[in-house]
Amino acid sequence: MSETVSFRHATAADVPAIVAMLADDPLGARREGDPHDERYLAAFARIDADPHDELIVAERDGEVVGTMQLTYLAGLSRLGAERCQIEAVRVAASARGRGLGRGMIQWAVDRARARGCAMVQLTSDKSRTDAHRFYGSLGFAASHEGFKLSLS
Amino acid sequence: MSETVSFRHATAADVPAIVAMLADDPLGARREGDPHDERYLAAFARIDADPHDELIVAERDGEVVGTMQLTYLAGLSRLGAERCQIEAVRVAASARGRGLGRGMIQWAVDRARARGCAMVQLTSDKSRTDAHRFYGSLGFAASHEGFKLSLS
Repeated sequence: MSETVSFRHATAADVPAIVAMLADDPLGARREGDPHDERYLAAFARIDADPHDELIVAERDGEVVGTMQLTYLAGLSRLGAERCQIEAVRVAASARGRGLGRGMIQWAVDRARARGCAMVQLTSDKSRTDAHRFYGSLGFAASHEGFKLSLS
Repeated sequence: MSETVSFRHATAADVPAIVAMLADDPLGARREGDPHDERYLAAFARIDADPHDELIVAERDGEVVGTMQLTYLAGLSRLGAERCQIEAVRVAASARGRGLGRGMIQWAVDRARARGCAMVQLTSDKSRTDAHRFYGSLGFAASHEGFKLSLS
């Protein structure tokens, strides 16, 4: 990217902009509510207080243009290896098509590697075929089936 | 199940038995080490100290015959809904074919529902086709591609 984009931890003030990005999506549009709903702030507070969880925003010219959540999962498998799970990746409509998503995932992978994680993992809805090519081009293997059971 | 199986949080004393189950598996055999390796105990300690993480064992006649890890993930998506992620599901070879795995997953789903989770999610290696039929029979939808990037 030729433009200057910086990454930082989200603050409570970023929550409405993050929710707007979550909702501005073919799948997300159906399941989000008022960006100022207090449940979003409560979820943010829990992530912010957890040393193994990071809500990240990408910022350009003072504007939030991307987001992703990185969760560092403990587990006994693979000699107790830590894994980094990426969730809720979004790039603002105004910033798409300029490599920001690639920069975000590469930044997350570098961060996980520096932390000593053995693996980075994520799931992507089967309808998001463009995203699948994108993750494949970044070295991810589509090695697993992702199962979901909705309880709501 | 006609036999009496109970579920409880794992203790440090269970770690070698859990690691032995992780290793007694076509995929796990290649990636586990000495069950008494201190890295397993360190990972256990982190899970045990985290109020959003549970390492569960199934016990029958005083013997550990199954294990799974339940992690309660925070996130802004879906109005800040909590999700339950299931990882590292194993049934001891001596206890297979008697419905224990089904009982474990149903127990996990009930626990997630009682907690108010909006979703239960897991991934399963694409080679585990029996497991995929099993999760489908429990109501899970294979709706996502699961991507992994190994860093080790």
